[in-house]
Amino acid sequence: MDKKLRIGLIGLGARGSDLLPHAILPVEDAEVTAVCDLYEDRRLAAADVVWEKRQMRPAVYEDYHDVLKDPNVDAVVISASWEAHAPIALDAMRAGKITACEVGGAATLEECWDLVHTYEETKTPIMFLENCCYGRNELMVLNMVRQGLFGEIVHCQGGYRHDLRNEVSFGRENRHYRLNHYLNRNCENYPTHELGPIAKILNINHGNRMLTLTSMASSSKGLHSYLAREKGESYDLTSAQWNQADVITTSIRCAGGQTIVLTLDTTLPRYYSRGFHIQGTLGMFEEENESIFLDGVHNKDDFCWKNQWGNVESFREQYEHPIWKEFLESGVTGGHGGMDGLEFRSFVHHALTDQKMPIDVYDMAAWMCITPLSEMSIARGSAPVDIPDFTSGRWILPDWKENEL
Amino acid sequence: MDKKLRIGLIGLGARGSDLLPHAILPVEDAEVTAVCDLYEDRRLAAADVVWEKRQMRPAVYEDYHDVLKDPNVDAVVISASWEAHAPIALDAMRAGKITACEVGGAATLEECWDLVHTYEETKTPIMFLENCCYGRNELMVLNMVRQGLFGEIVHCQGGYRHDLRNEVSFGRENRHYRLNHYLNRNCENYPTHELGPIAKILNINHGNRMLTLTSMASSSKGLHSYLAREKGESYDLTSAQWNQADVITTSIRCAGGQTIVLTLDTTLPRYYSRGFHIQGTLGMFEEENESIFLDGVHNKDDFCWKNQWGNVESFREQYEHPIWKEFLESGVTGGHGGMDGLEFRSFVHHALTDQKMPIDVYDMAAWMCITPLSEMSIARGSAPVDIPDFTSGRWILPDWKENEL
Repeated sequence: MDKKLRIGLIGLGARGSDLLPHAILPVEDAEVTAVCDLYEDRRLAAADVVWEKRQMRPAVYEDYHDVLKDPNVDAVVISASWEAHAPIALDAMRAGKITACEVGGAATLEECWDLVHTYEETKTPIMFLENCCYGRNELMVLNMVRQGLFGEIVHCQGGYRHDLRNEVSFGRENRHYRLNHYLNRNCENYPTHELGPIAKILNINHGNRMLTLTSMASSSKGLHSYLAREKGESYDLTSAQWNQADVITTSIRCAGGQTIVLTLDTTLPRYYSRGFHIQGTLGMFEEENESIFLDGVHNKDDFCWKNQWGNVESFREQYEHPIWKEFLESGVTGGHGGMDGLEFRSFVHHALTDQKMPIDVYDMAAWMCITPLSEMSIARGSAPVDIPDFTSGRWILPDWKENEL
Repeated sequence: MDKKLRIGLIGLGARGSDLLPHAILPVEDAEVTAVCDLYEDRRLAAADVVWEKRQMRPAVYEDYHDVLKDPNVDAVVISASWEAHAPIALDAMRAGKITACEVGGAATLEECWDLVHTYEETKTPIMFLENCCYGRNELMVLNMVRQGLFGEIVHCQGGYRHDLRNEVSFGRENRHYRLNHYLNRNCENYPTHELGPIAKILNINHGNRMLTLTSMASSSKGLHSYLAREKGESYDLTSAQWNQADVITTSIRCAGGQTIVLTLDTTLPRYYSRGFHIQGTLGMFEEENESIFLDGVHNKDDFCWKNQWGNVESFREQYEHPIWKEFLESGVTGGHGGMDGLEFRSFVHHALTDQKMPIDVYDMAAWMCITPLSEMSIARGSAPVDIPDFTSGRWILPDWKENEL
């Protein structure tokens, strides 16, 4: 393809500065013509990375509005702090810049509606950068689900189970936005890594939708315990009022009767897991021991499942998703085990060919809204709350039933 | 000990007929002086087992009231259908027979209160036979929790994840009580295998209590799908209205701020798991890959946890629970990997020495009540419901804080 997508990258913290060399610049059809951050050191470092990799000098901006005015920018990638995602994405769509927005929970429900309405008014393409939709196991399971291997799907689980005690509690030193969130909010603050792949499996917004949820929050003990050991009791944040619970469990019920259980678990010591788990009438997948159980095949191992731990590898040859098959043949590149590279290749390809984005504004709104809804449910003693239908009823229509990813 | 406990065994289905040779008769301090069941073939078979193992002939009864009148019976073991547990246990306490009652959920909240009030009036010792409280991993984790290895416990999970499609849907052929439950009720119908060990860890009724819960039910697809393949669409139960959901998720919040998530998952193809999982400020245990994570020890394996799968074995030497240490030295006996034998030895020992039962009527009521409460929450669209305090406020008293097991 002759035409290249000229990208302005907004937000150059840990995420943006990792995406730039590992996911964006490796895509040949993309150029980075502008970089933007509130911090000068980050801006200059990013411009240097572009120069090193591509021998091009991007425009360097402090204010994201200047990126949106730059005629040499076709598209923006937003990897700013969580609370800045929606405002920047709204402005970008209004400015006609093709938009790719990093993940995080919404601040409010209204923000989710604004994203949908602004997309519907402007028709500016927007993609939500949920990289876990491109995870190898997630895509293989999706492929197996579409082929009917697990039968009718009835129940799914997922989690963001990641020890972030250092990142959160040293947020001032790290200039990290999570600090203010953990001090002030109490909610499923990062639902999309697990919910994204599950929503694709359950055809959310394409013949199915999420109806209602309840969230329950544990106490908040992890950060105090951690800081007391790392910094001592006299350090100011050690005795801070951390509003964010250590573990939040959110149960969601779908129109099709499926249940989804999400676990946020980020301030206790543990290993990393997305706790991906799906169950249907013919089989199941379990991430914690990387196994697949198929009815009629594995029943004799019911009580000695240890023998089957890790058996996902034996399904790769037959059921690897085509996206990954091609990717492996071409040599895996990009961060997070290849997921970031895949999602960027997909974004650039869809933008240049003017195709419907594989993770669209309705996905974005439906997944991000879990954050403020969980916050309300917790504040109301785990009362059930309604999940909006951002498609305004169109999820039931035959021409909405196609689900690209 | 000279004195032997003379036991009448009520209910000789799959559970009773397994307990008799594998858990009860191996206890030297116990005799079985009566057996009772509504079915003659079961009664006669049980009497033969007692004769074979002990060369004694027990009295044989059809009506459990006759067991309660038998002066040669000191204690009864109730392993009848779920709905019969409480009525028989109430009558047994009133008749002054030391009572051991098998597990299952309650029919109603009132039944739980009746058990508590009848115990308080009669003072007849009663033990709830939750064998998983004697599971090897459950006891090792309890031991580690008591020694502070995991820090302050914040979140626990457990499940009864067991493919019972054959047992349930062929309930007529098997004379199994589960059939009527699955046709009619929709609830967390078997909460105690997972909740029992967790309640001991969280000191429920001994300085802590469960305050509130929400339950969410998936659709019910597993039994229809299974029967359609096993028996065809024309078989009457294939198209039955199975009220019981395939998967039910129950979230519980405790006075101490801990959360407990229970999963009932019995009508989809899968391997057996109790999904036992605990997390504290210093570490965690995960059953799905039999691993323990300790802060400051395992952090470098955060993203390659596969290397640590199965590492529980490396903790046995130092942290095996004393009950299991002694048991292994004496040679494991009894069903379900030794748990059944341990709980029976414990019951007989506590009965003969007139000590407070290790799993008492307050545990029994608190654990069994989850069933009708989950049923109410589901019927109300997952609304939170209150969990009664069966100790009537005494759980906060210093002399109630001791927790034997």
